[in-house]
Amino acid sequence: MAVITVVGAGVMGTALTYPAADNGHEVRLVGTHLDEEIIRRCRAERFHPRLKRTLANGVQPYDYTQIPQAVQGADVVVLGVNSRGVHWAAEAVGPHLQPGQIVLMVTKGLESSTAGTLHLLPDVFADRLPPVIREQVDFAAIGGPSIAGELAGRRDTSVIFVSRNETILPRLRALFETPYYHIWTSTDMVGVEVCVALKNPYALAVGLVTGMLEKQGGTDPAGAAMHNVAAALFAQSLAEMAYLVRVMGGGPETVYSLPGAGDLYVTTQGGRNSRMGRLLGLGLPYSEAVEEMPGETVEGVDAVVAIMPAVQQMEAAGKLDAKALPLLHALHEIVTRNQAATFDFNRFFEKLPFGAPESSTRDE
Amino acid sequence: MAVITVVGAGVMGTALTYPAADNGHEVRLVGTHLDEEIIRRCRAERFHPRLKRTLANGVQPYDYTQIPQAVQGADVVVLGVNSRGVHWAAEAVGPHLQPGQIVLMVTKGLESSTAGTLHLLPDVFADRLPPVIREQVDFAAIGGPSIAGELAGRRDTSVIFVSRNETILPRLRALFETPYYHIWTSTDMVGVEVCVALKNPYALAVGLVTGMLEKQGGTDPAGAAMHNVAAALFAQSLAEMAYLVRVMGGGPETVYSLPGAGDLYVTTQGGRNSRMGRLLGLGLPYSEAVEEMPGETVEGVDAVVAIMPAVQQMEAAGKLDAKALPLLHALHEIVTRNQAATFDFNRFFEKLPFGAPESSTRDE
Repeated sequence: MAVITVVGAGVMGTALTYPAADNGHEVRLVGTHLDEEIIRRCRAERFHPRLKRTLANGVQPYDYTQIPQAVQGADVVVLGVNSRGVHWAAEAVGPHLQPGQIVLMVTKGLESSTAGTLHLLPDVFADRLPPVIREQVDFAAIGGPSIAGELAGRRDTSVIFVSRNETILPRLRALFETPYYHIWTSTDMVGVEVCVALKNPYALAVGLVTGMLEKQGGTDPAGAAMHNVAAALFAQSLAEMAYLVRVMGGGPETVYSLPGAGDLYVTTQGGRNSRMGRLLGLGLPYSEAVEEMPGETVEGVDAVVAIMPAVQQMEAAGKLDAKALPLLHALHEIVTRNQAATFDFNRFFEKLPFGAPESSTRDE
Repeated sequence: MAVITVVGAGVMGTALTYPAADNGHEVRLVGTHLDEEIIRRCRAERFHPRLKRTLANGVQPYDYTQIPQAVQGADVVVLGVNSRGVHWAAEAVGPHLQPGQIVLMVTKGLESSTAGTLHLLPDVFADRLPPVIREQVDFAAIGGPSIAGELAGRRDTSVIFVSRNETILPRLRALFETPYYHIWTSTDMVGVEVCVALKNPYALAVGLVTGMLEKQGGTDPAGAAMHNVAAALFAQSLAEMAYLVRVMGGGPETVYSLPGAGDLYVTTQGGRNSRMGRLLGLGLPYSEAVEEMPGETVEGVDAVVAIMPAVQQMEAAGKLDAKALPLLHALHEIVTRNQAATFDFNRFFEKLPFGAPESSTRDE
């Protein structure tokens, strides 16, 4: 039996308590200052109001004032805060980490530095730790298609656990793997984290098509929808994810399996990014679309805004080909300049990633 | 202005008449012996009963007795017959082909030879032509996400035209490209044709999940569906497509762009393969599921049955790794032996295609 501490009692962090608890571990679920009501109900009723589920047996709720006790003696500290909470987590959790602990990150995102570099969130977290601690803990993350409510409902879920230190992966997997939680392992931290961050904006892009179709009056009299458009956006999304992963040093096997294609697929099947996509596809300026989803964080929008400064600097410096990311640029225009959702298909597939041969080009 | 002859008046062949006619070409739409009612209505009302659309201006209907006249003087002969009609087409159309014509294939499938080899349908067609003709015509094909009714409805559609002879591709593209029909070119005939053939069975596999969920009573009280399962099947499908493409000599850029990922995506969004998948996922034995779809050809089933003899021989001969295609094998058991739709997730992602590093493995 191990001790698993989950910091952040949102849906994804809490979902991980189910396989952990089912494996018989002591599981500590720690709410942040944003989770006070969640922790109150977990304590009073053993019920998570956002997951709409009873906690698994053996899960103990903690509040943020108890972080030191919750981290004490843990084998794994899962970071389930949102992308805006990573700096806070480094300050609040970091000083309490102990040698030999594994920090397992489920937060999604990338961060632009002012120097024009994109940083993975596990690195953003690690870089903010006291050096003596940073060197004595290991860092890992999770990628792949994993809707939190389905994992918590013990539906079959297939993911990749990733760490640059492959020696920790067998044990980490053993702690979480159950008959419904299927885990593969990888050392491609860059590939997994870039995919995890980008699937939300690109799912939003695919979701635009739902709104674009509604705006045109829905299917035409012969029944034609716009699935061909959505599929082209899906393929272009994969191409752009693969391009960014390659430039940043990750591998194609990550983009084209669970963390990239699989997670993008699941994210296009519903959720907040798709709903925001629909509103923008309907023609609402972004400034009005956000009013339709009050209080909801749309990770796809946050991600575009977070990464674009670095992308633009990398393009200006010649580190990224400006022709390689037309869909990401279109998205950025849509969510920051209230541009309408339209695409120049002829700009797609200019750059095919990962060793595309000369045979597959758009000859003009 | 060119002459474009389409043989096979089903939905996909007829859909191609719209961009061809919109570009001002003379377009001849030839029904096979299975299309007599379609051609009758095209002649009487200029209306295609399966597409539920008026023919584009300038499209001339022909019946199968007029094949010689229809092929005479054509610049491009589009083959829009179904996979069972390729041998017929070689006999009926082949002798009338003329030097310099381009045969553009939209038929989907692969064929097992008794020697245990998989053959691309353009090659099956070409091999059955008189040699003197075979050497004087060129062969091309189309891959990518293209629901016929949407193309005919002039919705944006993005595809790849492929030929081993790249010199013909710019002209071929120019003949068909319109503001709504976006065409990229490739010489990876193997990659495109394997993807085109496999997307139907794999879309059926993803579609099983819809039925599996219904069988379990739908979403659970907290709202959990089974999107995580569908996404894992989607990712495994891509991995298996990539594996077969690689073994047969095709390239990754094809699998991971429009012909593979894009077409698989669109095919999972509806259609006959998905409907058959749902019925099988509900637990109906295949022999009963076919009764629920009377008279309908389910290409995904045909494809599994057509390719499995060669796949099994290739595995026995060590040309294919028997661990690489667990989902295809499961599908085959489902549609030929009335097996229930269940999966051993632990058998997935054993083989990651296209240079997966050792870092991304399932260590036992």
